[in-house]
Amino acid sequence: MGFHVDSEAGRLRRVILHRPDLELKRLTPSNKDALLFDDVLWVRRARQEHDGFAAVLRDRGVTVHLFGDLLRDCLDLPAARGLVLDRVFDEKEYGPLATGHLRAAFETLDAGELAEVLIGGMTKREYLERHPEPVSVRFHALELDDFLLGPLPNHIFTRDTSAWIYDGVSINAMRWPARQRETVHFEAVYRHHPLFLGEQAGAFHTWSEGQIDYPSTIEGGDVLVLGNGAVLIGMSERTTPQAVEMLAHKLFAAGSARTIVALDMPKRRAFMHLDTVMTMVDGDTFTQYAGLGMLRSYTIEPGVGERDLKVTDHPPEHMHRAIAAALGLDRIRVLTATQDVHAAEREQWDDGCNVLAVEPGVVVAYERNSTTNSQLRKEGIEVIEIRGSELGRGRGGPRCMSCPVERDAVG
Amino acid sequence: MGFHVDSEAGRLRRVILHRPDLELKRLTPSNKDALLFDDVLWVRRARQEHDGFAAVLRDRGVTVHLFGDLLRDCLDLPAARGLVLDRVFDEKEYGPLATGHLRAAFETLDAGELAEVLIGGMTKREYLERHPEPVSVRFHALELDDFLLGPLPNHIFTRDTSAWIYDGVSINAMRWPARQRETVHFEAVYRHHPLFLGEQAGAFHTWSEGQIDYPSTIEGGDVLVLGNGAVLIGMSERTTPQAVEMLAHKLFAAGSARTIVALDMPKRRAFMHLDTVMTMVDGDTFTQYAGLGMLRSYTIEPGVGERDLKVTDHPPEHMHRAIAAALGLDRIRVLTATQDVHAAEREQWDDGCNVLAVEPGVVVAYERNSTTNSQLRKEGIEVIEIRGSELGRGRGGPRCMSCPVERDAVG
Amino acid sequence: MGFHVDSEAGRLRRVILHRPDLELKRLTPSNKDALLFDDVLWVRRARQEHDGFAAVLRDRGVTVHLFGDLLRDCLDLPAARGLVLDRVFDEKEYGPLATGHLRAAFETLDAGELAEVLIGGMTKREYLERHPEPVSVRFHALELDDFLLGPLPNHIFTRDTSAWIYDGVSINAMRWPARQRETVHFEAVYRHHPLFLGEQAGAFHTWSEGQIDYPSTIEGGDVLVLGNGAVLIGMSERTTPQAVEMLAHKLFAAGSARTIVALDMPKRRAFMHLDTVMTMVDGDTFTQYAGLGMLRSYTIEPGVGERDLKVTDHPPEHMHRAIAAALGLDRIRVLTATQDVHAAEREQWDDGCNVLAVEPGVVVAYERNSTTNSQLRKEGIEVIEIRGSELGRGRGGPRCMSCPVERDAVG
Amino acid sequence: MGFHVDSEAGRLRRVILHRPDLELKRLTPSNKDALLFDDVLWVRRARQEHDGFAAVLRDRGVTVHLFGDLLRDCLDLPAARGLVLDRVFDEKEYGPLATGHLRAAFETLDAGELAEVLIGGMTKREYLERHPEPVSVRFHALELDDFLLGPLPNHIFTRDTSAWIYDGVSINAMRWPARQRETVHFEAVYRHHPLFLGEQAGAFHTWSEGQIDYPSTIEGGDVLVLGNGAVLIGMSERTTPQAVEMLAHKLFAAGSARTIVALDMPKRRAFMHLDTVMTMVDGDTFTQYAGLGMLRSYTIEPGVGERDLKVTDHPPEHMHRAIAAALGLDRIRVLTATQDVHAAEREQWDDGCNVLAVEPGVVVAYERNSTTNSQLRKEGIEVIEIRGSELGRGRGGPRCMSCPVERDAVG
Repeated sequence: MGFHVDSEAGRLRRVILHRPDLELKRLTPSNKDALLFDDVLWVRRARQEHDGFAAVLRDRGVTVHLFGDLLRDCLDLPAARGLVLDRVFDEKEYGPLATGHLRAAFETLDAGELAEVLIGGMTKREYLERHPEPVSVRFHALELDDFLLGPLPNHIFTRDTSAWIYDGVSINAMRWPARQRETVHFEAVYRHHPLFLGEQAGAFHTWSEGQIDYPSTIEGGDVLVLGNGAVLIGMSERTTPQAVEMLAHKLFAAGSARTIVALDMPKRRAFMHLDTVMTMVDGDTFTQYAGLGMLRSYTIEPGVGERDLKVTDHPPEHMHRAIAAALGLDRIRVLTATQDVHAAEREQWDDGCNVLAVEPGVVVAYERNSTTNSQLRKEGIEVIEIRGSELGRGRGGPRCMSCPVERDAVG
Repeated sequence: MGFHVDSEAGRLRRVILHRPDLELKRLTPSNKDALLFDDVLWVRRARQEHDGFAAVLRDRGVTVHLFGDLLRDCLDLPAARGLVLDRVFDEKEYGPLATGHLRAAFETLDAGELAEVLIGGMTKREYLERHPEPVSVRFHALELDDFLLGPLPNHIFTRDTSAWIYDGVSINAMRWPARQRETVHFEAVYRHHPLFLGEQAGAFHTWSEGQIDYPSTIEGGDVLVLGNGAVLIGMSERTTPQAVEMLAHKLFAAGSARTIVALDMPKRRAFMHLDTVMTMVDGDTFTQYAGLGMLRSYTIEPGVGERDLKVTDHPPEHMHRAIAAALGLDRIRVLTATQDVHAAEREQWDDGCNVLAVEPGVVVAYERNSTTNSQLRKEGIEVIEIRGSELGRGRGGPRCMSCPVERDAVG
Repeated sequence: MGFHVDSEAGRLRRVILHRPDLELKRLTPSNKDALLFDDVLWVRRARQEHDGFAAVLRDRGVTVHLFGDLLRDCLDLPAARGLVLDRVFDEKEYGPLATGHLRAAFETLDAGELAEVLIGGMTKREYLERHPEPVSVRFHALELDDFLLGPLPNHIFTRDTSAWIYDGVSINAMRWPARQRETVHFEAVYRHHPLFLGEQAGAFHTWSEGQIDYPSTIEGGDVLVLGNGAVLIGMSERTTPQAVEMLAHKLFAAGSARTIVALDMPKRRAFMHLDTVMTMVDGDTFTQYAGLGMLRSYTIEPGVGERDLKVTDHPPEHMHRAIAAALGLDRIRVLTATQDVHAAEREQWDDGCNVLAVEPGVVVAYERNSTTNSQLRKEGIEVIEIRGSELGRGRGGPRCMSCPVERDAVG
Repeated sequence: MGFHVDSEAGRLRRVILHRPDLELKRLTPSNKDALLFDDVLWVRRARQEHDGFAAVLRDRGVTVHLFGDLLRDCLDLPAARGLVLDRVFDEKEYGPLATGHLRAAFETLDAGELAEVLIGGMTKREYLERHPEPVSVRFHALELDDFLLGPLPNHIFTRDTSAWIYDGVSINAMRWPARQRETVHFEAVYRHHPLFLGEQAGAFHTWSEGQIDYPSTIEGGDVLVLGNGAVLIGMSERTTPQAVEMLAHKLFAAGSARTIVALDMPKRRAFMHLDTVMTMVDGDTFTQYAGLGMLRSYTIEPGVGERDLKVTDHPPEHMHRAIAAALGLDRIRVLTATQDVHAAEREQWDDGCNVLAVEPGVVVAYERNSTTNSQLRKEGIEVIEIRGSELGRGRGGPRCMSCPVERDAVG
């Protein structure tokens, strides 16, 4: 059998996580904003908390693939290694003088070392500990502690860089420079790793083509696989309408989906991705942040001609109705914790809504969001709590930190 | 016996801590910057961590006074209650229409409730749950969830609001509005609490007069009691040279000190207080952040006339020499962890230098700063580690969170 | 006869302007934000433009008093000079060591020089060109080009620091540090200048007490004297409800006014003062920025008891009706230029609404706001245009730059 | 004869300017930062000032080509029109549903209208006044006053988008999104306009390939043609070392230059381009901003192999010596106005250094920078002053606003 994600809340079978390492140690007060983090993390504790998250999933019968392992395995294969190094060591980035030298130096690393520095980055000082200095203005002009290769601390949010939608995967063009190099790593994994090649050819679709689609960006945190051939997408700071249209063409052409509901989200960091304000906990049940309000939405369906789409606009007050219709339901159930605006804002910030369902009605959530968790329990949802004192500083919860690659429909 | 602090690293006997509560729950992504916090905290965990800190101190024989208890005890006394309410309910803040009504409403609270809301704040909605709405433009114009009385989350940093220097206490004018109401609470405690009144009259000096000294501000995080009649003060974003001069007059007139060394610190939040970059771990030993560098300094001594001071300027390279001279030593020992600039910047941010000595050569430090802690141990310092996953988000460590009121000289 | 302002659009007879000088040359890209300017100005051109503004007023029969002259005249009088120097040279600002020396050094300046540096500021370098260096940490710690005495470039906006309302003047507590020293200059002028003393004692009221009222701040740009005993006040980033209440008490007690309408403005710099979005061009006619929208308002009237006020809340949609009622009219006429949102935003920024009426239906406006000006003319308003290429960079127009001290009722 | 630029200060014969229009009217307080302007401009006045600038150049015998005319002429040619529309109407920007409709709609515009909207932008509202709404999520999700096609107000700075260096032109990859669409307009002009085609084929080189070189960006404000086969390049926020290396390869391979001196500039907006802090006023004479200081530099020369370069690093104190050596001189003359740091900072901000030489020792400068201009005159430079009250708000002076396409060597 193979890879597919048929819902948000059906039984979760296989997932990609990324155990954080060197790349998180790179965060400092000076660079954290550019790297999209709100604070530096205590890495040892963050890793313990992440191990706890993985353990909870394994306990529930989920197979956990660690992204670092997947990447390392790939980098033993010349084709995958070539794909990555060609993309990273580009003359337009490193200049005609240094590029060849740098690529050659990185070629000498074994797969484990290479995976580590591709994710964790390398300073000029670290490079010079092992390699001679190339004659290059680009290289000379760096300070010793500047990054020759930037770290990718957001790899921990495996949700975003690729997103499985029914029987295919979207390898995403990412919005911000701090994350754009993540994409080529996923391209290498999906195209060359035996786990995915083991599948017979054509066993899964590819809904998009990676960073080359830029500025038509889309990130997985904005994509909810509703089930019933429907997809819900937040058009946010990071996910564009043009990417939604392109995805619609692909999904409809393959017959893999038949409706997309697109939400017109505020384009602000606080509402970074749809799943920071709204996730699904059962086949008809959502958790939603009180401060989100109702949003304009668009239902997209196949049109008459092959390249046509039918687009229906809905006013804000019909948002829930449009989602229900896509699911073939009369109504959906939306759970919003009752609390004052300050507490609600705190819990949204702390990823109160960003839960990961492991089966219908059973979710993994951060322990700290006690109001949200109590309310979910009162509504009959089972909540498995994990620690996230450190993990949460990256503004991402259990859903953000997981990329399901195999999940059943709800029922 | 009595209250006095004769050093930074002598045996610590009594300390004021503040166990965080409601006020930390008030922090949200929207208000945290104005409230001087970099992130919202998980309050239950922060309180557990703080309890751990207090337990470590008690284990070492330190008497711990909780600030909330001290304030509550005071508010049972009409004089202290009047002092606080007069200062808080000022017509210039609440307007002629509402002020009297609000003061009367708060008068009805018992001491425990009053202490809680003075520290934790109150929204308009919370007020209206118990009291009728006054006819007042000032009151009407508030939104329901706006703070009628702002929370004081920085009370946890008891180090700053008052500072004991030898046989007296400086009740400080605070730099930023978010902390200015803290001062009147300490005024009430030091003037009216039986603990301090139990001392015979005149048993301790008062080096300053509270918020009325503004804009001559000084905060305790910038003040190190070096011992040997010397004081080290960082002139920072929050501590002004004029406050240093005023303090010098008072200390010298009382014969309580005979030298102040003032450091010209960068006026930036990252170097918020001197004790975030430099603290004392033994009678001649300091820990210092690598990124601080050397600073211009001034030695201040009594002058010829009564109102005169002698001021000697030192260039940056003589900073350590000036401190040693004030201590009557040939040289001081400065410990700076060897690590790359990124790691050093991380540990400073995480309060690596902000340790609290409990006796000479024994300090309490955050567990997370492993590089700094290892290096201290290698140099023969005993390091007692405490958890600070949440506490550290306020950018303050064990020294910031403690106000010694009784500490011996080093020996 | 005497000083009084009975309307916004009646015949203007006397006004205080401030001809900009040294203080504007102090603006740099680094300090302009703290000094509340959006750009540095070309001072020679700004002064020419300002001279043009004064000339237009004189042509219309308005007596123009230049603030620099008023202040200089005052500083020849020991009482006024003492008032200002006492307030400026405060130990809490300059420390016990330097304050006396500095005050003595400034005492030696003649009135013209003193007025210039009080408004234009002085660097440490400039001070040392004429005076010896005092022994003072406060003084030593300054860099040579730091300001020993900060410049006051906002003096050009004479509208704000004091505001005449019917037969009295409000000497205002200003919101931001960059303007707070302006107030003492106006105190000296109104209390000691022969122009105002020449009036028989008690000839005008004083509605407030200067900076000592802080944080109960109010700025003249938020105050419109509607006529008919009514006043319109914008509660903005800079004008507080408590100051409105205090003013109401004073005005009603003196019988000088009988209604205040207070508007709940957005607390944002773009809507800095009410007169940047709404001014009066005739007895019943206002110009209003399209982007302002309708605001919640409060009608404040005398209450039953002496210290009572009657406060009536109005929902946003009744804003214009509440203003009309205060004027005793059925309706007011509100002129809003028809243009796209981008153009409207531009003209508000460029002070399109910030016109100064010199008599009913005749206003002075910046030439650059051609759309607004055309529309006013189409509505029968006479528009006298002045150049403001440079002046406008301070975000203030003809109304902001003028303080009427004598103006008739509309008629 | 033909197009070539052999120096910075030799006789200027032909130049491209852009007379500002609709695109400047698009600037608002809300969008100006994203569009790289510090303030909104008074467009009518800015255009008058620009006309004055062009008149001064024509008086000096310089042929002025207006960019708007060049672009309009091109857009009559199907090849040029196709080039531009293909690049602008990209599915990755406008989505598969709208792109074709939009391109078709713009195709119907005549060359003059098309040039105007390509430079001035178009809102959704403006589009809908003439065309039906396409079925497209990308289009529907725009607000009516949002820009469907963004304006390009920085076209006025013709210096940056292309840069002539000896006998060829670099069509530059621009650093910030707000300027990237400018480049395709210059591609169309240089490849298709009869003015440049009139030259026999191969009459000039092309040193780079336009926006496709991104992230190897370079902007003309950072490029000074020193003469004597030498080029001076500032590596700034916008000009990268890799672009310098690529340019070196091209210039050396063609034999058009034989030395590049690259300066390691601060990567800050205040030092946006080299020509905002340093320009050339004669064959050996530069004007330099006092606050620039001395910078690390690199001399780049042809290496042994064909793809090799020789790179020599210089410490900051050798900056002027490295420039002199490239010119074959013993020393260069550097003029820096003597004034206090505040005044110097003001004049740099106001483009005091950004002068345009029209022949050796004769420069065009903004009138407002009187200190700089006086000092230049004292040093024997003839200064022709132009008005720039409005033009200067874009932070660019006479050099920024001109693209020389024909200029002699110095002598």
